Amino acid sequence: MVSPITVSINDLHSYAMAALTSIGMNKGDAQTIADKLVLTDSWGTFTHGNKLLGDYIARIEAGGTNPLGKPKIASEGPAWAIVDGDNAAGQIGCNFAMNKAIQLAKSAGIAYVGVRNTSHFGAAGVYPAMAAEANMIGLAMANDIPSVCAPGSKKAIMGTNPLAYSIPASKHPPILLDIATSTVAAGKVYAAFDREETIPTNWIIDSNGNPTTDGSLYPLKAALAPMTGHKGYGMALLHENLAGVLTGASISWQVLNWIFDDQTKPTGHGAAFIVINPEVMMPLNKFFQRVDDLIDEIHNSPSVNESEHILVPGEMEWERREKALSKGIKMPSDVVSKMRDLDKRIGLNTHWLA
Amino acid sequence: MVSPITVSINDLHSYAMAALTSIGMNKGDAQTIADKLVLTDSWGTFTHGNKLLGDYIARIEAGGTNPLGKPKIASEGPAWAIVDGDNAAGQIGCNFAMNKAIQLAKSAGIAYVGVRNTSHFGAAGVYPAMAAEANMIGLAMANDIPSVCAPGSKKAIMGTNPLAYSIPASKHPPILLDIATSTVAAGKVYAAFDREETIPTNWIIDSNGNPTTDGSLYPLKAALAPMTGHKGYGMALLHENLAGVLTGASISWQVLNWIFDDQTKPTGHGAAFIVINPEVMMPLNKFFQRVDDLIDEIHNSPSVNESEHILVPGEMEWERREKALSKGIKMPSDVVSKMRDLDKRIGLNTHWLA
Repeated sequence: MVSPITVSINDLHSYAMAALTSIGMNKGDAQTIADKLVLTDSWGTFTHGNKLLGDYIARIEAGGTNPLGKPKIASEGPAWAIVDGDNAAGQIGCNFAMNKAIQLAKSAGIAYVGVRNTSHFGAAGVYPAMAAEANMIGLAMANDIPSVCAPGSKKAIMGTNPLAYSIPASKHPPILLDIATSTVAAGKVYAAFDREETIPTNWIIDSNGNPTTDGSLYPLKAALAPMTGHKGYGMALLHENLAGVLTGASISWQVLNWIFDDQTKPTGHGAAFIVINPEVMMPLNKFFQRVDDLIDEIHNSPSVNESEHILVPGEMEWERREKALSKGIKMPSDVVSKMRDLDKRIGLNTHWLA
Repeated sequence: MVSPITVSINDLHSYAMAALTSIGMNKGDAQTIADKLVLTDSWGTFTHGNKLLGDYIARIEAGGTNPLGKPKIASEGPAWAIVDGDNAAGQIGCNFAMNKAIQLAKSAGIAYVGVRNTSHFGAAGVYPAMAAEANMIGLAMANDIPSVCAPGSKKAIMGTNPLAYSIPASKHPPILLDIATSTVAAGKVYAAFDREETIPTNWIIDSNGNPTTDGSLYPLKAALAPMTGHKGYGMALLHENLAGVLTGASISWQVLNWIFDDQTKPTGHGAAFIVINPEVMMPLNKFFQRVDDLIDEIHNSPSVNESEHILVPGEMEWERREKALSKGIKMPSDVVSKMRDLDKRIGLNTHWLA
């Protein structure tokens, strides 16, 4: 039985750096990936943090992801660019793209940067967070191999194709939302199955296209349900177009599953980033004041549980991060287990994982 | 008992033009509004078509909307603009803004145009449809007075703050999605109440913050539920920021309800439009081919009802429009009733409504 382990941000970061440099990645790129995985864990989004590192590294070792890939601008204009991710890790191509979008939006006011030839990019929220850090509004979208059905379909039609956005504030931390376009992520179905619980009728669809409460059917005999039916399906299709169609990336069933499909081949994912620079439109302090006022108004609205105010998206995650910075992160046992496996496999001998 | 009436597109358009010019609007602006209301009815989206004309005109007559308002560019840059809607009808300010966005995106590749000092803009989908007509990808968002609760809130926090988008294709009509960020629109709650039916538990929240199946509580003692809880709430908040905060429009509870609040005052709505021009990023025929291929793939996916293929968003609406162009539109009785009321009130004597 594996126990949770509380680890400092620094120690967790060092672990990720050591793992990534040990398989031949340069220090700069390793740092980019480590920064994002640790940020994700510090938010408490453990499904998309260092838990994934072992699988990312397995794909690099098998040759499917290029540890030395160098993303480049394939084409660009005054307010847009298409990036070829050179089949580097998803975080490398997408970090490059988001930085480019921030740079373009500085003068243009808005920018679109699409990426092709990239891979699983981790938690979508880490990219908009970069825009918020630069006092801009950021959006991130991605496509993926289908796992979510459409209304009336017997099998998956779209990926979970996430949307994340962030809006910077002054008094408050940035608003930050990161959602899949399915009702729930696959992880929630697996977790309910592990706990031997039935699941709500709007989570998955069996292979006859009917809702089911039997989580054991997923993924072989069921697909995830889109959030609110046609709404989630329609949004997934928007993200497929902006991240896949428009970038020249693989689309829908052409995308490889980054864990289960042939590990020697590029996954072909696409991603898309939109950045808006409020400062060109109104004085930044006025913009911040308006965002802060809106957040205050929400906080002051009557809540069902009178001891807790209504949250804005990201509020819980930034609070967890504050705590993580001072007290470390309590990594759940499933994550510890995955990290320990990787640690042993590549011989890091990380002391706090022993 | 009012019966449905089938009317030609031309006759319906003439009715809207006659009504709008009769209260002092110039012909060009009347045509803009009539075009959009008739397009909406031809899609079968009767809740947002000519049914609303009587209430739009009532607000103009009361002085709350300026029939001679002239939207202007308040500020602009290479890829963005803020439009002051001059308190003209929502369709006038927003049509102006979407045209500006299309023009800016031609060379910039992407553009953001926000509008303040506008009003209820009808069906959000009519604006992206303009972008698709220009071979571009279009998005529309708006804010509104709160009617939708947030997770844990006892009362409404956000408006239904819709999102619409369109993506042009070649073989197929444009993909076109138009959704509110609540689980369902208020109209569905009223309709279930009229039919004396209970409603699903995820449609509304009573004033204690609990789900309820009693539609009669809405709107006085209940708020709409956000789609998939925190997801719809988070998206509504994005739209509030892009349409309200960033444009200088009224925000949240500052917005007036365009039907029920003081008819002599501007409603203060905001709206936001984003247009992306694929042609600067790849040859247009290649882009179209990729969109068409994706639609074909979806159409060829196995469906529960084997006699019907899986639809893409907007497909049903464009089919209805084809039929409307040749055979006219069967206006439902509730719409006929509203149109007849207006016809009598302003003395149009429209022959087919008699």
